[in-house]
Amino acid sequence: MNELTLHPMKEIRVVVAGEHRVFVTELLDKMNATGYTIIGNVAGKGHHGLHEAHFMFSEQESLVMIMTVVPEEKVEPILAGLRPLFSRHSGVMFVADVAVSRRDYFGKTPARP
Amino acid sequence: MNELTLHPMKEIRVVVAGEHRVFVTELLDKMNATGYTIIGNVAGKGHHGLHEAHFMFSEQESLVMIMTVVPEEKVEPILAGLRPLFSRHSGVMFVADVAVSRRDYFGKTPARP
Amino acid sequence: MNELTLHPMKEIRVVVAGEHRVFVTELLDKMNATGYTIIGNVAGKGHHGLHEAHFMFSEQESLVMIMTVVPEEKVEPILAGLRPLFSRHSGVMFVADVAVSRRDYFGKTPARP
Repeated sequence: MNELTLHPMKEIRVVVAGEHRVFVTELLDKMNATGYTIIGNVAGKGHHGLHEAHFMFSEQESLVMIMTVVPEEKVEPILAGLRPLFSRHSGVMFVADVAVSRRDYFGKTPARP
Repeated sequence: MNELTLHPMKEIRVVVAGEHRVFVTELLDKMNATGYTIIGNVAGKGHHGLHEAHFMFSEQESLVMIMTVVPEEKVEPILAGLRPLFSRHSGVMFVADVAVSRRDYFGKTPARP
Repeated sequence: MNELTLHPMKEIRVVVAGEHRVFVTELLDKMNATGYTIIGNVAGKGHHGLHEAHFMFSEQESLVMIMTVVPEEKVEPILAGLRPLFSRHSGVMFVADVAVSRRDYFGKTPARP
């Protein structure tokens, strides 16, 4: 395997109140999202909108950002798994394209001789 | 609305000295960038270049990273609004593609029946 | 130069144990990756896989995320430079597309009249 080859994957970032961190990481574990990085103690200001009453962060509440990288086919199950959390609590989720050099870290078995 | 549909948006990340955090968040508020996440106490090493004297971070100065997600049409006004800050102070700004599941959080009114 | 023009670049994020931060930043300095942002004290859970014994983070070990933005041609040399670190220690690296407004900060000399 050439370690310098980059493989396209999806990065998911979730920002939630610290008390919901375990909900997210347990979901990721269950989905075999095999690794994640957590940035603690971030601040957030609300995402106002139609759902203002339910979904807004209180200003400057302590939040965590949880980042994971997964193959594209895992994005939809993870979104579905987060839905119960986001239907009742503040939180945002972003999905972005990212490339990784070691695909086997992220839930895809590389072809090997 | 299908909450699992992903909508393309733009993510803006700004890294500035902590003292300029309010300049950025007030700009985002004014632009109706309806939410942002702030990672405090990050370290940065300078972006040397033609403007070295003016724009370089002093090594390891305490900085903040401010992240927001906006519809594409807000990127240019936000860049323009940051220009007075960046013309006198250290700072960098990145724009990236990102997808979100709840577009109404980020300044776009979703079509609703 | 129009400061509002966005130029495509590559963002590299590296997550490693705190003790390897200097290895990465010295590499970036050597590669003339002229700036970087460091988020300290992040937590990570392992990237299990074929290399489990060697490459897994111990759960919740204190890590750093080092972010830099470079022209595309620097991605491969930086990956190659990280290889000795990743062959012996835990760590992950992501590459993503990003746009910047001031290309001269990131190792590309802008055309100037």
